[in-house]
Amino acid sequence: MTKALYAGSFDPITFGHVDVIQRASRIFGKVYVAISINTHKHPLFTDDERAEFARQALHQLANVEIVVSEELTVQLAHHLDATVLVRGVRGGSDLDSEMSIAGLNEKLAGDIQTIFIPTAANYRDLSSSMIKEIAKFHGDVSKFVPGPVAQALNDKYRQ
Amino acid sequence: MTKALYAGSFDPITFGHVDVIQRASRIFGKVYVAISINTHKHPLFTDDERAEFARQALHQLANVEIVVSEELTVQLAHHLDATVLVRGVRGGSDLDSEMSIAGLNEKLAGDIQTIFIPTAANYRDLSSSMIKEIAKFHGDVSKFVPGPVAQALNDKYRQ
Amino acid sequence: MTKALYAGSFDPITFGHVDVIQRASRIFGKVYVAISINTHKHPLFTDDERAEFARQALHQLANVEIVVSEELTVQLAHHLDATVLVRGVRGGSDLDSEMSIAGLNEKLAGDIQTIFIPTAANYRDLSSSMIKEIAKFHGDVSKFVPGPVAQALNDKYRQ
Amino acid sequence: MTKALYAGSFDPITFGHVDVIQRASRIFGKVYVAISINTHKHPLFTDDERAEFARQALHQLANVEIVVSEELTVQLAHHLDATVLVRGVRGGSDLDSEMSIAGLNEKLAGDIQTIFIPTAANYRDLSSSMIKEIAKFHGDVSKFVPGPVAQALNDKYRQ
Amino acid sequence: MTKALYAGSFDPITFGHVDVIQRASRIFGKVYVAISINTHKHPLFTDDERAEFARQALHQLANVEIVVSEELTVQLAHHLDATVLVRGVRGGSDLDSEMSIAGLNEKLAGDIQTIFIPTAANYRDLSSSMIKEIAKFHGDVSKFVPGPVAQALNDKYRQ
Amino acid sequence: MTKALYAGSFDPITFGHVDVIQRASRIFGKVYVAISINTHKHPLFTDDERAEFARQALHQLANVEIVVSEELTVQLAHHLDATVLVRGVRGGSDLDSEMSIAGLNEKLAGDIQTIFIPTAANYRDLSSSMIKEIAKFHGDVSKFVPGPVAQALNDKYRQ
Repeated sequence: MTKALYAGSFDPITFGHVDVIQRASRIFGKVYVAISINTHKHPLFTDDERAEFARQALHQLANVEIVVSEELTVQLAHHLDATVLVRGVRGGSDLDSEMSIAGLNEKLAGDIQTIFIPTAANYRDLSSSMIKEIAKFHGDVSKFVPGPVAQALNDKYRQ
Repeated sequence: MTKALYAGSFDPITFGHVDVIQRASRIFGKVYVAISINTHKHPLFTDDERAEFARQALHQLANVEIVVSEELTVQLAHHLDATVLVRGVRGGSDLDSEMSIAGLNEKLAGDIQTIFIPTAANYRDLSSSMIKEIAKFHGDVSKFVPGPVAQALNDKYRQ
Repeated sequence: MTKALYAGSFDPITFGHVDVIQRASRIFGKVYVAISINTHKHPLFTDDERAEFARQALHQLANVEIVVSEELTVQLAHHLDATVLVRGVRGGSDLDSEMSIAGLNEKLAGDIQTIFIPTAANYRDLSSSMIKEIAKFHGDVSKFVPGPVAQALNDKYRQ
Repeated sequence: MTKALYAGSFDPITFGHVDVIQRASRIFGKVYVAISINTHKHPLFTDDERAEFARQALHQLANVEIVVSEELTVQLAHHLDATVLVRGVRGGSDLDSEMSIAGLNEKLAGDIQTIFIPTAANYRDLSSSMIKEIAKFHGDVSKFVPGPVAQALNDKYRQ
Repeated sequence: MTKALYAGSFDPITFGHVDVIQRASRIFGKVYVAISINTHKHPLFTDDERAEFARQALHQLANVEIVVSEELTVQLAHHLDATVLVRGVRGGSDLDSEMSIAGLNEKLAGDIQTIFIPTAANYRDLSSSMIKEIAKFHGDVSKFVPGPVAQALNDKYRQ
Repeated sequence: MTKALYAGSFDPITFGHVDVIQRASRIFGKVYVAISINTHKHPLFTDDERAEFARQALHQLANVEIVVSEELTVQLAHHLDATVLVRGVRGGSDLDSEMSIAGLNEKLAGDIQTIFIPTAANYRDLSSSMIKEIAKFHGDVSKFVPGPVAQALNDKYRQ
């Protein structure tokens, strides 16, 4: 059984992320979704909040498991016995930086393979940062993120 | 067991193709490599020659099988019971057209998922058309294609 | 009233083209759709067929008019008294070549302004050439082109 | 009469912005230029200064009006009765992010249409951030921004 | 003295090519411009015509020499004792294919270095194919190519 | 003798930078490597440390000299009597921003020419920021940077 790992900051999880994870869960026996404790950015939500949003959004996918990690992605993959790294891609400008990350990861751990899954056309425009921007200006984000996330974004910016 | 399909014209197969197929063969239980009988181009090699080059280059990969096909890729996938389409990507400009093909294939067959595998840095510059161009001017293509293909290219253009 | 011109080969018209034309028709008082008699390609459909497909697809848009032309686009614009050239764009790789065409057109006719309209996410993967490719392999193109076009494509390739 | 809205941070306005606005003013009956009060960046100039620079640079365009706004762009468009959002584009890498913003705005307000206007070749390399960088190192920015802006940049960084 | 080689089909030479060659001639002691006898395209002008156009356009650059060649570019460089290959670039989509050609050339001849020279903003939209297209429709190409080339294009398409 | 200048933050220098500088040193009589004292970022290493790392990595290249500068790049070039600016490029998305910088520099100093040198395939995925990220998570960076830099990165993040 091939195990895959999809690591990211998921700050917060969007319908675009959910789409990629659903696609991965149909291909691989097991899919780990890792909430990266990213030490150099200022996340909007804590890692526990981000993990909880992911769990709520993905609980119907039996072979998907959420983990929280502060390891390098390839090290985490080794610990989880995952041999595939999954990344969603939305277009050419995404790919150039993703190719570089994949190339570096291959140099760090030659036994781990990165694959890219295209995001559904309908979600290709979404990004966590853009959605936070919309929420900040009190725009309606309910088409872009799961219900609990939309609620949390509203609470965050309306206080 | 997830079965994957990598379809292309492979006119001729290069070390870049071989690299992507090796990577796919480590991820999936079975990988079909389909030589497309492309009715609107003028291939340099016949489909039988192209299939034979692929068989020679890939015979050590036990779970890889070469097929020759004139079907639409998603129809072939259905017939082979493959649920994943594999495509190699070399950079951002590749991806834009690959995303479109993946999007159309999804509209034609929603049960089939396209994934992209990044080509190794060392082979990222290769393309069948560029290699034919080099062979035509009697350049040495032995670093870019398997031995029998290099020989065949030399024969083709030196006659 | 600003008049706009959208010129192309439309061989054949797709739902992507229709989407861009609908958007243009809401912005401009008049939108001309010009079927270019492109002398250096081998179109699948005659210019009369292409114009007829466009007329059928667009007859509900009162301010849209189909013309057939073998003039340079900017010359046609002058004859039609159109001051805006409309082009649909689907992504970054489209844009680089479209920017060049716009730049050349500006040098040829400084009084005419090119604008780009983003194609709807749902149609961003469509292109006439890809759809002809699918039809050639007897794939179902009815999700990509208007009914009469799908019928004509089927007839063309099944004969 | 179609009203268009061009929103941005304009920190500060450059000849590239002025070029796009002039082009828009020839196409549309009315063009609003909105200085966004962007709450998460640290602008170099206050919103009043940025608005004043824009007014000085554009006062000869009778159908252009400067507004200062802290609303979401589509909400502002509704309030101004503008149905078109204008964005300048300089090249393919610009477009990918602009397409995403346009896609999100369409999901937020389906009655508003984004169009892209190519920047003149001569101004395609300009960006507010690059110009501030040049001014910081005491380079001459007078070819890139209107006179009062160049003066203000000099004052800012020479003090 | 470093010798550089700029090879291409130059069918025909444009002001964009001339601009890149002028820039190269200021950097390198000697610049060879090679008209490639490209055996698989159908050039509009013969290689003698193309070489003559280049000679007329570049005769004022004392360190520039025109050659006609049917060799592979790196082989020609060896014969000319040139250690640098020059290529003009107009934008990101140009670069991806140019990087691949440079990568292959490096594998063929590790002692030869490719460099890219950005085309002047004013000529960044030009390409020989686009200019031929304009001439075919009897557009005015005198802003894009040297006088004798414009004349020849007119003659070609008006006959 | 043509003198070239390669300016950057080099925070820290990577094998990718070293590769580009080696290539430049074979083309030009003299290559200056300028450590920019970048006043608006928070560098990981001081400018003295960065210069020292560069000196250690490049001391075998006789015609390469390290300088530390807080001038605008074109002003520094004038002072050093350098007429060529060298930039490494890794792919299309790099190029779009590099073209803009080159365009602005040309407007600031028309006597100075920017050229781009493609990074070797093997180093195309490297960037100083990505390497710092890997070091922060205690990954092994010894394949990406010279020994003293790897040691310093380890010390920095393990304290």
